Amino acid sequence: MLQMNALQTYSGILQLTETSIPASTNEALVRVIKSGLCGTDLEIVRGYAGFEGTIGHEFVGIVERSETMPELIGKRVVGEINVGCKTCAVCLTGDERHCPHRTVLGIHGRNGAHADFLTLPGSNLIEVPGNVSDTAAVFTEPLAAAYGITERVKIESSTSVAVVGDGRLGLLTAFALSTETQELTLIGKHEEKLGMAARRGIKTLVLDEMSKMKGDFDVAVDATGSPSGLATALSLVRPLGTVVLKTTFHGFTEWNSTRAVVDEITIVGSRCGRFLPALELLSTRRVVVDDLVSEEFPLTAGVEAVRRAGEKGVIKVLIDMGVGN
Amino acid sequence: MLQMNALQTYSGILQLTETSIPASTNEALVRVIKSGLCGTDLEIVRGYAGFEGTIGHEFVGIVERSETMPELIGKRVVGEINVGCKTCAVCLTGDERHCPHRTVLGIHGRNGAHADFLTLPGSNLIEVPGNVSDTAAVFTEPLAAAYGITERVKIESSTSVAVVGDGRLGLLTAFALSTETQELTLIGKHEEKLGMAARRGIKTLVLDEMSKMKGDFDVAVDATGSPSGLATALSLVRPLGTVVLKTTFHGFTEWNSTRAVVDEITIVGSRCGRFLPALELLSTRRVVVDDLVSEEFPLTAGVEAVRRAGEKGVIKVLIDMGVGN
Repeated sequence: MLQMNALQTYSGILQLTETSIPASTNEALVRVIKSGLCGTDLEIVRGYAGFEGTIGHEFVGIVERSETMPELIGKRVVGEINVGCKTCAVCLTGDERHCPHRTVLGIHGRNGAHADFLTLPGSNLIEVPGNVSDTAAVFTEPLAAAYGITERVKIESSTSVAVVGDGRLGLLTAFALSTETQELTLIGKHEEKLGMAARRGIKTLVLDEMSKMKGDFDVAVDATGSPSGLATALSLVRPLGTVVLKTTFHGFTEWNSTRAVVDEITIVGSRCGRFLPALELLSTRRVVVDDLVSEEFPLTAGVEAVRRAGEKGVIKVLIDMGVGN
Repeated sequence: MLQMNALQTYSGILQLTETSIPASTNEALVRVIKSGLCGTDLEIVRGYAGFEGTIGHEFVGIVERSETMPELIGKRVVGEINVGCKTCAVCLTGDERHCPHRTVLGIHGRNGAHADFLTLPGSNLIEVPGNVSDTAAVFTEPLAAAYGITERVKIESSTSVAVVGDGRLGLLTAFALSTETQELTLIGKHEEKLGMAARRGIKTLVLDEMSKMKGDFDVAVDATGSPSGLATALSLVRPLGTVVLKTTFHGFTEWNSTRAVVDEITIVGSRCGRFLPALELLSTRRVVVDDLVSEEFPLTAGVEAVRRAGEKGVIKVLIDMGVGN
């Protein structure tokens, strides 16, 4: 049996493991070129959701085998991470993303992308346009998740939007939504990260200056990853405004829900989004992500890559499998 | 100067006060027939929102004076409780309910309805149809608030709705929404109160039996008045479902917001609603409220009425000003 390396978590221990290359031919086999580390990876390593196996859900790779969709073989692809059961009422509406029985790449019931190979159903794979670099392609999944806000909340060119949080998620959210509205402000704590948004023509504000805000945004996005993010976002919207929750974390949040009732605020949870619009944003360079990469590691240094991704000031850490380089 | 009685709260003390009948002619003068006690009254007496003055915002009365709308004089009316500044951008869109400078009858900056007389702008008053009793008319405001959910969330005949909480607000919400959907379940703790809904053909469930629920409601309304209501409602909705927050209280709520993100739940705050649809529900008897009245008190026993409204098992307490009886 052919062997490969995979970054796996078991019983709370993260380590590089030598394991078999998947042999089943039910799904397409993808040789991973690069993968990206995400806050969810860090949460999983800490024990969130009890996942065990290979972590990672952001990747670009080359299809090596696909019995159901042979036309994909040799193509460079990204992959939708949710795999529905295809038989329940939710799946039959075409919405595998919300199938209650779904598996999720590197997150729930399915080995992930920080490995030399992964498998996904051929129907989950999407070819990457030639002008999108490997590095940019790794951002397809998180950018889709950020841009997915527009599937849940109407954002027009005059809609005033505050994005709270200048980490990986906050920056991508600001970049994605700034393609829809000119009236966007990114609110964060880190001058260097805010500078990346400012260089793209996005208005920025240091969190400490928030008292200067009138709190009359149409929409405020909590992308802080912190339990206090909801309360901050809530304080920024006008009556009848909308708060978008992107933050997931392991624990509870405390807030005064009375303001949401009195001012009839809508709070919208948003997790993921469609890949095609995200690839389009990258291909047309309406969203440029390359400078978000803080560091790249080889897969053999995967544990170190995870540690690095959790450090302050770091934006995006990638793992490069060294395919063909 | 002519005198009247009013139930007033000052410096944390609630008492019946002899005060002047309002003399200003800028607003219509209404002689109150009956008023209703609401959870918000109890919260105000406890110090919520720092209101001082005459409490009460549910009433029916007779217009005694109106310079701007003389056609109202002698008419039996109910009144929209929000009074906007009529000059800000929000008011100019016709939405005085969300004016940031608004006063609110018996709640914020404006004396209320537990008094022999009150004043409101003539444009806030709506004539009560002859076939709606005084008792039923007092329910116009809370019924409008309950039915106001339909202004914020689309509820069709096949929409499955759970209403959590069988107090005053929960019962009225269940009655109001059951006019829109057959798929409604009221979930509460009190067999007697649930029985009132059951007699109207509404499905009911004791909270302890909630583990039997599949948690796949399209919509769940938190009408518990309790900090735990949001978490309960959240557990009842399907992925992409909607939670409606009606509960206001003085304090914080704690919940796991991650479920709202992962399952892309929408949470909608809902405070008030339009009076005309509520009067229509009462007039056509699609909603019948008379049996919700636990007890009536004269205004001179107003302090006792407030105490009674806060007792367990009590649904609605009214104050009868003794006009013409």
